[in-house]
Formats: sequence, C-alpha cells, structure tokens
Amino acid sequence: MDHNKPISFLKIVPADLMPGLSIDCVIFGFDRKDLNILVLKWQGLDSWALPGGFIGKDEDMDIAATRILEERTGISLPYLRQFHTFGKVNRRNNSQDLDIIDHSNKKFAIPIRWLEQRFISTGYLSLVDMRQSKPTPDILSESCQWKPVKELPELLFDHMDIVKKALEQIRIQINHLPIGLSLLPEKFTMKDLQMLYESILNRDLDRGNFQKKMLKLGFLNRLEKQHTGASHKAPYLYSFNRSRYDALLNQGIGYMS
Amino acid sequence: MDHNKPISFLKIVPADLMPGLSIDCVIFGFDRKDLNILVLKWQGLDSWALPGGFIGKDEDMDIAATRILEERTGISLPYLRQFHTFGKVNRRNNSQDLDIIDHSNKKFAIPIRWLEQRFISTGYLSLVDMRQSKPTPDILSESCQWKPVKELPELLFDHMDIVKKALEQIRIQINHLPIGLSLLPEKFTMKDLQMLYESILNRDLDRGNFQKKMLKLGFLNRLEKQHTGASHKAPYLYSFNRSRYDALLNQGIGYMS
Repeated sequence: MDHNKPISFLKIVPADLMPGLSIDCVIFGFDRKDLNILVLKWQGLDSWALPGGFIGKDEDMDIAATRILEERTGISLPYLRQFHTFGKVNRRNNSQDLDIIDHSNKKFAIPIRWLEQRFISTGYLSLVDMRQSKPTPDILSESCQWKPVKELPELLFDHMDIVKKALEQIRIQINHLPIGLSLLPEKFTMKDLQMLYESILNRDLDRGNFQKKMLKLGFLNRLEKQHTGASHKAPYLYSFNRSRYDALLNQGIGYMS
Repeated sequence: MDHNKPISFLKIVPADLMPGLSIDCVIFGFDRKDLNILVLKWQGLDSWALPGGFIGKDEDMDIAATRILEERTGISLPYLRQFHTFGKVNRRNNSQDLDIIDHSNKKFAIPIRWLEQRFISTGYLSLVDMRQSKPTPDILSESCQWKPVKELPELLFDHMDIVKKALEQIRIQINHLPIGLSLLPEKFTMKDLQMLYESILNRDLDRGNFQKKMLKLGFLNRLEKQHTGASHKAPYLYSFNRSRYDALLNQGIGYMS
C-alpha cells in the first residue's frame, strides 16, 4: 500500500457513505502456539479496537471490507468472509466509547454527527499466515499488532462480542474454512496442526486419534523429517495436497473431534 | 396477531427507521417430501418476494426480524437466526424491481425516496413445522404461501440469491441447527428423517448407512410401529430424546454423510 496516497478512511464525507453502517474485521493468525488477532491502538489513547470503517454509497460491501482492511492495517487479503452483522441498539455506549468519538472529532476532524449516529456493523473474518503479513498502522493508529486471543486488551464498543462470534464461527465452520492451509506455513508438523485445532476448538485432543483421523482424510503429504540437529525422534514435516484439500473443503472436510 | 391493530410496516416514517437497511426472512418448512419456504405475493402484481421490512431507529435488529416476520406472515417464531448480509450495490435494478417500487408508492403511499435508496439487507432464517403454522398475508400481500424450494416462482430483487445462501448455510450448519427437531412432527419415521437430510444435502443417501449413523448418535427414541392398517412391514416411529438432542446440538451433532 502506498502510504503517500490520501487515506480514504480520513475523508469522511457523510454524503458519500452508507449511513449507519460499518464494517469490522477479525483477522486470525496462528504463531504455532496460540490463535492471534490483529488489533489497532488509537493515536494518543489507551484504546484498542478491531480494524474497521465505512461503506461507500457506490461500493459493494465485500469490496469495502477488503479496502478497509488494507487502509487500516496495510494487509491486502484475497479472502475475507462475512460472518455476522451486529445490530444491537446499544453497541457503543460506555464512557470510553464516547471518549473515542470526541477524540476522533477533535484530533482528526471526523464529523461528530456522523460518529454519533447508531451504527450496525458487519463482521468479516480472515485467516492468514502471520509470518507472511506485515501489519502497518494507519494514521489514526499508534500501532497495529497481533495479540493472542487469550490475552486481548479491552476492546472498544462491542468489539469483544464480535471477536467471540468470529471464534464461534470458525469453530462451527471448521470443516468448511481453509483453516490449516491459511494459518500454517507451507511445511508443518502434526503437532503444529493439532495445536491449531486445539486452539480453535478450545480443548485438548488425543494425539494418537488426531493423527489417525488427519492421515485418513488423505490431504497431507508426508515430507522429510524436521531438522532439529538432534535425535532420531525428530518429527515428520507435512504439507497439504492442494487438490485433495480443495475438493474436501468443498464438501466439508469431515474432521470430527 | 391482532389484525385490527395498525400494521407498522405500512407506517413508513423514514425519520423513525435505520436508513438503507432492511431484513429478509427465509422460513423453511418440510412436508415429508420437500423443503419449502414461505413467500408473499404482492397485491395486484404477479410478483413474489420473501417476507421483509425495516429496522426501527431504537430497535435491536434481532427484535426487528421477529416483528417483521409476524407482521408480514402472522407467524410468530422464537427462533430466528441471522445468516448473511447482502450488500451488493445493484441488488435491486431490473424492471420488475422498479415496478414494485412505483406500485408500493402509488398503492400504499410508501414514500418513493425511501424506497429508492440503496438497501443493504440482512437475512434471517428459521425452521418450522409446517403443520403447526398458519401463514396469513398482510395488507400488502395477496397471499402468503409455502412453496417447494425446487419449484419457487421468480422472486423480486436478489431474493433468489438470499434463498440460495440460506440453503448453503443450513447445509454447512447441519450439525449445529435443530434441523430434525424443528422441521419434523413429534413422531416420524426413519424415512422421514432421511428425506429431510436428503433435501437439505441435495443428494441421495444410503438407507442402511443413514439409519445406522442416526441410531448411533443416540438421540432417537424408538416408539410403536406406524399404523398403516396393513402389513407387518409397517415402519417404526421415532421421537427425539430432547436432552440428548440439546447436548449434541451444543457440541455439533456429528452426522457426516
């Protein structure tokens, strides 16, 4: 992304935007240990939030989601999936929420009446390989960071509910989302794969059973042993058989824990 | 529902409504043979549509969905689940769509500028026992009918896309939605249950395998044989073991075809 280019998020011209509608993105990464999500810290405030923004009057909502994520985090993703729309009247009503509205108006000249209206927000999620992504904060934000889901800071508005719903959705759709393919590096161990499933399902899985089920699905290529410099106990590396993976994903992978 | 009560759908006061946002409902029923959905035929036009409406400025979106369904079809449901939000710029743009806007303005005095704006619409779905429901058309509609999904008339706007997405969602979430419990009568045969799964998965299933898998899940009570007046080959009736069903649903039923 060209950061010299004017950032459209700052050019809030209410006449050009769908009123009362916003988008928030929950971007998942996996660091071989924990599920992480991408959060932004507001300039000059101790407030964290999901990357979000507004929809142009002539812009398809899915296209707006991709644009917003890129503008706010520098991350360009081909794969953003809508998962839920948040429509409670009081999504934003605690004192910190009101502070951020005031702050955004004073510091960035975002029109106060625009900010104060009720917004219904559509959540989009994506799964990315953390090692390949370079989060870059936009001008509104002091930082843009991966944080483990288990150790998230307090988030603005109803963003914690949005994260919880996204977690529920990747759990429910575990057989229909490219979980392993998107979140793991090209080569990984069976333990990496198991820890990923455990972090999504939020429970421990039996090692022997997990390996047996995964191998039976037939979408893993066994590669060389991982180079650990040491013992004969080095684990095998695996990669995904892409055509088999895609075919399975289409009908539901069929992994039941 | 009291039909003497003024119907709020007709009292379209733009200042009281969330601009640019609507709700459309896909209500599934099953007649022991086919999946059906509930559709409305507009007064004086040969146009069919899903039951839909708008969201009050002070109304939670989920509550609006329940209200809209009741106002438009007379059906009151405790269980409406949001499944997707439809945000393409050109959701409504063919000549029939424009006719209906003109017609609604002329016949029902719905403000034309309100109708002509771009709407982003959130889809809600539910599963009901057709035998227990009494669809009643509202004042805008000539009729409110169950129609088999396979034989739907042409629908207004992008409503056919909304139906397709709802079908995809009940297929993907087949282990997480109370499919059997909501769509079947209290007592049913194994064949009824199989035909329901076949109609959702849109493919034939092997009878022996299906029965074996379903019985293994342990959520069926076997009852008396169905009274057919005839042979020794009368099938058994079943009902759901409600506590086991609820527990399984919570973790995912675990039926894989």
